[in-house]
Amino acid sequence: MTITADPGHTTLNLGPARALTCRECGNQIPLAPEFACAECFGPLEVSYEFGDITRAEIEAGPKSIWRYRKLLPVPSDVDAYPNTDPGLTRLVKADRLAAALGVKSLWVKDDTGNPTHSFKDRVVGVALAAARQLGFRVLACPSTGNLANAVAAAAARAGWESVVLIPSSLERAKVLTTAVYDGALIAVDGNYDDVNRLATELAAEHEDWAFVNVNVRPYYAEGSKTLGYEVAEQLGWRLPDQIVVPVASGSQLTKVDKGFRELTDLGLVDGKPYRVFGAQATGCSPVAAAYKAGHDVVTPVKPDTIARSLAIGAPADGPYVLDVVRRTGGAVENVSDEEVVEGIRLLARTEGIFAETAGGVTVATAKKLIETGQLDPEAETVLLITGDGLKTLDAVEDKVGPRATVPPSADAVRRALAD
Amino acid sequence: MTITADPGHTTLNLGPARALTCRECGNQIPLAPEFACAECFGPLEVSYEFGDITRAEIEAGPKSIWRYRKLLPVPSDVDAYPNTDPGLTRLVKADRLAAALGVKSLWVKDDTGNPTHSFKDRVVGVALAAARQLGFRVLACPSTGNLANAVAAAAARAGWESVVLIPSSLERAKVLTTAVYDGALIAVDGNYDDVNRLATELAAEHEDWAFVNVNVRPYYAEGSKTLGYEVAEQLGWRLPDQIVVPVASGSQLTKVDKGFRELTDLGLVDGKPYRVFGAQATGCSPVAAAYKAGHDVVTPVKPDTIARSLAIGAPADGPYVLDVVRRTGGAVENVSDEEVVEGIRLLARTEGIFAETAGGVTVATAKKLIETGQLDPEAETVLLITGDGLKTLDAVEDKVGPRATVPPSADAVRRALAD
Repeated sequence: MTITADPGHTTLNLGPARALTCRECGNQIPLAPEFACAECFGPLEVSYEFGDITRAEIEAGPKSIWRYRKLLPVPSDVDAYPNTDPGLTRLVKADRLAAALGVKSLWVKDDTGNPTHSFKDRVVGVALAAARQLGFRVLACPSTGNLANAVAAAAARAGWESVVLIPSSLERAKVLTTAVYDGALIAVDGNYDDVNRLATELAAEHEDWAFVNVNVRPYYAEGSKTLGYEVAEQLGWRLPDQIVVPVASGSQLTKVDKGFRELTDLGLVDGKPYRVFGAQATGCSPVAAAYKAGHDVVTPVKPDTIARSLAIGAPADGPYVLDVVRRTGGAVENVSDEEVVEGIRLLARTEGIFAETAGGVTVATAKKLIETGQLDPEAETVLLITGDGLKTLDAVEDKVGPRATVPPSADAVRRALAD
Repeated sequence: MTITADPGHTTLNLGPARALTCRECGNQIPLAPEFACAECFGPLEVSYEFGDITRAEIEAGPKSIWRYRKLLPVPSDVDAYPNTDPGLTRLVKADRLAAALGVKSLWVKDDTGNPTHSFKDRVVGVALAAARQLGFRVLACPSTGNLANAVAAAAARAGWESVVLIPSSLERAKVLTTAVYDGALIAVDGNYDDVNRLATELAAEHEDWAFVNVNVRPYYAEGSKTLGYEVAEQLGWRLPDQIVVPVASGSQLTKVDKGFRELTDLGLVDGKPYRVFGAQATGCSPVAAAYKAGHDVVTPVKPDTIARSLAIGAPADGPYVLDVVRRTGGAVENVSDEEVVEGIRLLARTEGIFAETAGGVTVATAKKLIETGQLDPEAETVLLITGDGLKTLDAVEDKVGPRATVPPSADAVRRALAD
């Protein structure tokens, strides 16, 4: 297999990245816009040869994911190209949520502060940087929302064309927040599976289109490692005891673990045991089901949950999630849509952070893991909040609102407050 | 006048703040929860006695507005109390927008990255910190949206009660995004003027309620200085030649100027001429009208614009805006609602930043200032984008959307893209 999309360059400048390695059979190929192993069809993952990296060097770097550029498949001058500069979001000490959940030490990684208010800006940032090196000229994706926002915004900022495919049933906020960037947004009368299938078909036809989560997926997925890096750096260069990660495709969870292991291997943090937990909505919980049944394979399901950004019925990285969770002594748990909404509200009223449904899944799952004794309340715990409540207002619409609507008199306000 | 709301303390710990000074008659009073001069009813402003402050010290500080704590009316350990840690948002080099506008060097200060996605987190952060020292126990405000979000979130995070008064006609997104934090949100059947009047009445009755923009307004307003500090620090400790600031009450514009002057006086930046420009929507442009007419006073108007976060018909700081703009050689300009929407879209498609209507006002005003020769296209310019497009989706709803809606076939997508 040869590098085809970059005919003008003999050497790709993808920083420390050295090859793509099949996660199933271990077959290795040169860096290229490939995502499946030609030998066994297993998923390809970026392999690296890291140089010397110091904490001080990272700390002195850009205030974005590019401070970790020597750990990502991107060129060393990546931040010289226009991009949305995502990352370095807040790690919030969540003492009030901790008290509500009955845990001793709790942190919330609040990725709502990203440019388009979800962690997708991280993966799209890495995908764009790699795609540029790989010779692509159009940024594309199939998406149910957050990814659409991130791709359209990143392409606009970079001056690239974008092609974004969405199901025509998508929520108004996510449609408008994609369309405003003025790329080619195409609504498809079908479900996400239909949209995804179209993307794969179109990716094969257009050699200058980078479908970030299809043909440049190995590079894209590496962006999630930065969540792990940031948590460790923001804790003062150490790993937490436990971390709860929402599971859609499962990629994020496996990459947070990969990030933790890389930091340990490089001596940037002290090695220590940590436990990784996965969080799913019951209406789309194939990985939790497999975990609980003790299976190694994940049986696809038809999603039915308000947590639409996690509604991937056939999660590509499901088996790898099971590996990580079992290796680290974690678990995968699932919660009902009612619990998801309660999770959103609990986080909002204790910490002033308004998360989308996926964040509600994480909080509610943490609560359930504590109540069922799976998560140690004495151990330091991090929750990943990966998207913003402003994008999924429907989830809370029937549950929250003004305490009262009153005529314009101070007496009326007083009475309403006394009730 | 004595300090009444803090009976347990003989000395207030408000950092470098030393007194409140009337901006009209110069009368000075001790630090207290007062906002109007007892002598002349003029507005009170915080006066300081700054110690030695170095760039290195600021750079080594928290990654939030608290890096400037020695320049704000807050205690030196302000970041030890739970708050939303706002600020240090991106300053984006906007080359594509610059090209579209025909200017040489352009930066966008993107305050959508704040915890509740507007600059109000800055002012509320300072108000909360000061209110705690002043002995208040409830955080409150009248608001039309962004401030409501920021107050409710900050109170939740701090574990304070909140009382937020809004007009009952407020947009769904801003209602839900306030209500979710579970404070006392009261909808009032009236306009913002009615709500504001109620707030003043209630503030007088409840001595432990800090209405951030009423009885602790002098402290609150200082939070906007951090926009000026950050722009200067992020430019590498220097001031821009020109800055365009949206004008509602006018406070933000005057505080950005105050921030620039303080940095200069303290030797943190080299002194240089800079020009401050104000931006208003034509449907609420009393300050622009006064500027153009050569008046020193601002005649109130009845607002009628989609830029609701700027719709203050009787802007308290209007005369001070005129002072700053005239002193620095700037101007105040206004744009139509159609231009506001075009401004939002222009910023989105060139830089991948989705601003609320107030941001559209800033971009469109900058365009008009350039076209009319008021803003120098050769000089380095900064635009302040103070709020997020997700909160004002109605503004773009009729203008943007999918390019096409197609059946789930690759052929259909191809045809749609070819059109």
